[in-house]
Amino acid sequence: MHKVIVGVDIGGSKILSGIISPQGQILIKKKEPTLPTRSYGDILDGICITIRELMQAIHLTDADILGIAVGAPGPLDHVTGVIKDPPNLAWRNLPIRDELSKRLGRQVLLENDANMAAWGEWKYGGGTKAGHNLIYMTVSTGIGGGIIINGQLYRGRNGVAGEFGRLKMQAGPDGEWMNLEDLASGKSLAWRAQQLINAGASRSWAEFLPEGTAVSAREIGDAARKGVPEATRIISTASRHLGIAIANLINIFNPDRFVLGGGTALGLADIWQEPIQKWVDAYIADYIRCELSIEFTKLGDDIGLLGCAAAVLQGTEKAGR
Amino acid sequence: MHKVIVGVDIGGSKILSGIISPQGQILIKKKEPTLPTRSYGDILDGICITIRELMQAIHLTDADILGIAVGAPGPLDHVTGVIKDPPNLAWRNLPIRDELSKRLGRQVLLENDANMAAWGEWKYGGGTKAGHNLIYMTVSTGIGGGIIINGQLYRGRNGVAGEFGRLKMQAGPDGEWMNLEDLASGKSLAWRAQQLINAGASRSWAEFLPEGTAVSAREIGDAARKGVPEATRIISTASRHLGIAIANLINIFNPDRFVLGGGTALGLADIWQEPIQKWVDAYIADYIRCELSIEFTKLGDDIGLLGCAAAVLQGTEKAGR
Repeated sequence: MHKVIVGVDIGGSKILSGIISPQGQILIKKKEPTLPTRSYGDILDGICITIRELMQAIHLTDADILGIAVGAPGPLDHVTGVIKDPPNLAWRNLPIRDELSKRLGRQVLLENDANMAAWGEWKYGGGTKAGHNLIYMTVSTGIGGGIIINGQLYRGRNGVAGEFGRLKMQAGPDGEWMNLEDLASGKSLAWRAQQLINAGASRSWAEFLPEGTAVSAREIGDAARKGVPEATRIISTASRHLGIAIANLINIFNPDRFVLGGGTALGLADIWQEPIQKWVDAYIADYIRCELSIEFTKLGDDIGLLGCAAAVLQGTEKAGR
Repeated sequence: MHKVIVGVDIGGSKILSGIISPQGQILIKKKEPTLPTRSYGDILDGICITIRELMQAIHLTDADILGIAVGAPGPLDHVTGVIKDPPNLAWRNLPIRDELSKRLGRQVLLENDANMAAWGEWKYGGGTKAGHNLIYMTVSTGIGGGIIINGQLYRGRNGVAGEFGRLKMQAGPDGEWMNLEDLASGKSLAWRAQQLINAGASRSWAEFLPEGTAVSAREIGDAARKGVPEATRIISTASRHLGIAIANLINIFNPDRFVLGGGTALGLADIWQEPIQKWVDAYIADYIRCELSIEFTKLGDDIGLLGCAAAVLQGTEKAGR
């Protein structure tokens, strides 16, 4: 049997662990809640227990593992392996890479989750269209991105390149310029919907919101598909901001592929694809317009795990040179 | 004597030709008007005559020339050497690289002018600060850019990466999103000033505008330095848009250096430096704020010629590997 890769995708709400073949087949995986009330040490211990369980379940020993990679919310320092101050986890300046390496008895590779997903898309998501330059944007609770240039992850000077959620889109009512993340992330959509519901638009939403539940991008999508005007407007405004941000990124990078992923983007893909493409087409240069369709990743939730495999393989190839 | 490089920087209003040492010393140069009324063939013939003159003036033969490089307004196709449809020249789809190569009897290297300037800044403008990743933005009649990643020019799929003038900044009064070039280029500043003058603000401008002259970024700068409020407002609004666009580019690239060049930017550097830096600092991520000061190139008008030298040397090194 060929060696395989262990991947762990740590998110604010869930941790996905799995074992992946170099060809991108997920042999086994397990999803667990992050439970932010648990201590950092407990969570790391839990990850190590899950990895052992998964290995045992398919009869693998340490010798079968080519490498272990972990994707975690950024910003993080790729060089020191320290997680800095992720917005959705109460972890500040923790040396997660070394702590996990110590517990697992071998060097772990750490990368921010959006970069990891970009790796996954580049290696396993492209089919025959795989090009040299790929821009990946994830839209979930927040918005992030990953940049692959000439088949290499581009990290920038401090490892924080690709922070697409921080792009300034327009001046708000108070004159302060607003982030893309404040205009088009899952969290911002939910906030906007909640404002409307609080302001009395709840009758039209009632069907989609069982008593006492908090509104999320999922319910907004359901309401928009049924024609609730407020939901349609929220979805449409966000698609405009995403389309314009993507057009800007395309004018900057002139990439081979532009791929969207993340829970919010994938959940709304059926109603976002057309308007986003329309805004992109309106604002990118004539001579590249026909050649580029915005894609939604086909790798779904597994994109982070596949990224772990891609990252380990990339590291191995380099070392083997 | 070591071999030297011939560089030609073609602009909408002037053509600068020169001979440069590999160390970045300009041995001789000549500036001529482009005269758009001249035919394309005439202009190319003129460039060849100037190159011969410059070589003779310092007693060089063909054997002394390491290579010839030409910077021209984009968009242009780097692979085929065809100039596409530059906004400030009436040249459409002309094979300028091959036409010049034929006339000069050797292969000419063609690159768009902003990319060429980025090369020049990267190789000769950095002093000890020269890093791996450099973003260059030129603000003159229009706005363009060049991207150096890992010491290589990044061109993108169709060779049109770095079109920073096309970045969408905000929705205009008609709902149409406006380009950075429409908000902060030399041409747009002049247009805004002309609107004010036409609307009757001409008394405060009179001192800076001799009867019958068209207003340009230079006069707006002079008026702003003397405290003419309309001029100050025009300069300040443009600096905000530039600052926000630059903050976005820094959040995307997390570069080692961000450098501004071009006639308008350099002419206004004394009044633009502070507000641009202020807007950038307000909107880039905390953890990179202290490490990056926006620079104005110290290479001035010669940046394009120096870029020609850098491009030829880069090509030669590659071929020699």
